[in-house]
Amino acid sequence: MKEKTGSPAQVKVVEVGPRDGLQNVKEIIPTESKITYIEKLVKAGCRYIEVTSFVHPKWVPQLADSKEVYSQLPRKEGVHYIALVPNAKGMETALEVGVQEIAVFTSASETFSQKNTNASVTESLHRCREVAEKASRHKIPFRGYISTSFGCPFEGAVSPTRVVEIADELFDMGVYEVSLGDTIGVAVPTDVERLLNKVLGRFSPDRIALHMHDTRCTALANILRGLDLGITTFDASSGGLGGCPFAPGASGNLATENLVYMLQKMGIATDIDLKELGEATRFMEEVLGRPLLSHIECRAEMTQP
Amino acid sequence: MKEKTGSPAQVKVVEVGPRDGLQNVKEIIPTESKITYIEKLVKAGCRYIEVTSFVHPKWVPQLADSKEVYSQLPRKEGVHYIALVPNAKGMETALEVGVQEIAVFTSASETFSQKNTNASVTESLHRCREVAEKASRHKIPFRGYISTSFGCPFEGAVSPTRVVEIADELFDMGVYEVSLGDTIGVAVPTDVERLLNKVLGRFSPDRIALHMHDTRCTALANILRGLDLGITTFDASSGGLGGCPFAPGASGNLATENLVYMLQKMGIATDIDLKELGEATRFMEEVLGRPLLSHIECRAEMTQP
Repeated sequence: MKEKTGSPAQVKVVEVGPRDGLQNVKEIIPTESKITYIEKLVKAGCRYIEVTSFVHPKWVPQLADSKEVYSQLPRKEGVHYIALVPNAKGMETALEVGVQEIAVFTSASETFSQKNTNASVTESLHRCREVAEKASRHKIPFRGYISTSFGCPFEGAVSPTRVVEIADELFDMGVYEVSLGDTIGVAVPTDVERLLNKVLGRFSPDRIALHMHDTRCTALANILRGLDLGITTFDASSGGLGGCPFAPGASGNLATENLVYMLQKMGIATDIDLKELGEATRFMEEVLGRPLLSHIECRAEMTQP
Repeated sequence: MKEKTGSPAQVKVVEVGPRDGLQNVKEIIPTESKITYIEKLVKAGCRYIEVTSFVHPKWVPQLADSKEVYSQLPRKEGVHYIALVPNAKGMETALEVGVQEIAVFTSASETFSQKNTNASVTESLHRCREVAEKASRHKIPFRGYISTSFGCPFEGAVSPTRVVEIADELFDMGVYEVSLGDTIGVAVPTDVERLLNKVLGRFSPDRIALHMHDTRCTALANILRGLDLGITTFDASSGGLGGCPFAPGASGNLATENLVYMLQKMGIATDIDLKELGEATRFMEEVLGRPLLSHIECRAEMTQP
């Protein structure tokens, strides 16, 4: 594996709770509550927030209010509001509400791409390119996601070479960074080494993000290995929002609280205040009527001899 | 930090579910169910199992049947049944039932020691020594725990120098290994580096175990750093048994399932079969009537685009 580069002084955290989190809960959350949640995230110091997706409401009814949400965002200097845009039509809607920054997405697995977006990877990249062209024309910065970069629920292992090819296409379209997603939370640190050794042979670490899921509690171990190899951008969801409802503790998204806790205690700045972040999560707990992972300070007091 | 030593081919997992797990649940579990649970753990390939504690039932009513449990254990070549022994009186009881192997424990924090065992660290080490002398006389191998090695719920940070002093005393008593406990799950990888750099300056890595809690989902990141630094023994509890009941996902003990998943996928052998381990955990889920973390194969099928 590559040599350790030492820990960075600061990392960038992309908060995906309002989009990736709320897209994956059963409930339809009122627009007003989404705005309050985002306000609290901003207050906590989140500077990169994925706020919604301009996807057809038929596919994701949870985010049918994307126009309303994006129009009502609390404007604040230095806060980047990112919206997921799946296709050219979504991009038109996004432009109507003056979108600041967007994300496009594709997958490293053919079967996952078909099942998730009803398109082959090639078709999906074509859609990304249509969005990218519109975004570029309007000088709107965009990042790209590659789902199932570490494994596919249908195909199993995914080739790092394939991930690099797709990243190449995304960078060619003009994405400013590529976020490698462990969509089903199967990665372990040696997988991160293997993929990053390939990816960082071609792209600079400051253009690569890790989007790890904590399904098997390996997310922070994977992020540690990412830090070791020079990665400084990580996606996470406040309270682990968007986790799997089937098994307690078997969360899906990595909780921003746990990420920030680890980073801060390692001496790595994130600009995020854990207590305020807990307030944002606690608000969503009230809205959803069930506990998430807001209890970091309560957990600090637990004793387990 | 110390140089990476590369991953080991094999690690030793100490399964603590029947003791550390069941001690921390509200319910009193029937002896018969404990034995069935242990049988299933053995079937799954667990070779080091902490099965009970010879503690006064007034303090831990959950383990009041320690004599019965230890007497009824399924005997199997190569399986080590470890019992926690808090004092000389407990050691006498342990000897009555022919204990094979024991563990003694103390704490790195004065306040925690007082609150947890009603004894100062010095008194606690004195108790350990009384137990150790009896154990040595009967040629019974014993390991030693140091609770709160990475932080105390009352005192906060704990000095690595203090941990080394206590480890020194334990090795002087004849423990074959010292398990460093992150009792409240506050450690991050830099804490592991800091402590292990001290500890491994004095003791060989094959005499040090890590007992990490997953309260903030940092356990596997901490274990990764432990592996990087040459540690090859890790404690864990099947299904994360013994976790905090207050917040879903905010588990206490590291789930053996998650540990074994990470290690196996990293190419590190553990001798534990994940499917069979899931059966053991699932059995305890039925006994307790609530979900634990047995669903690793179910979770493998989850898709979260």
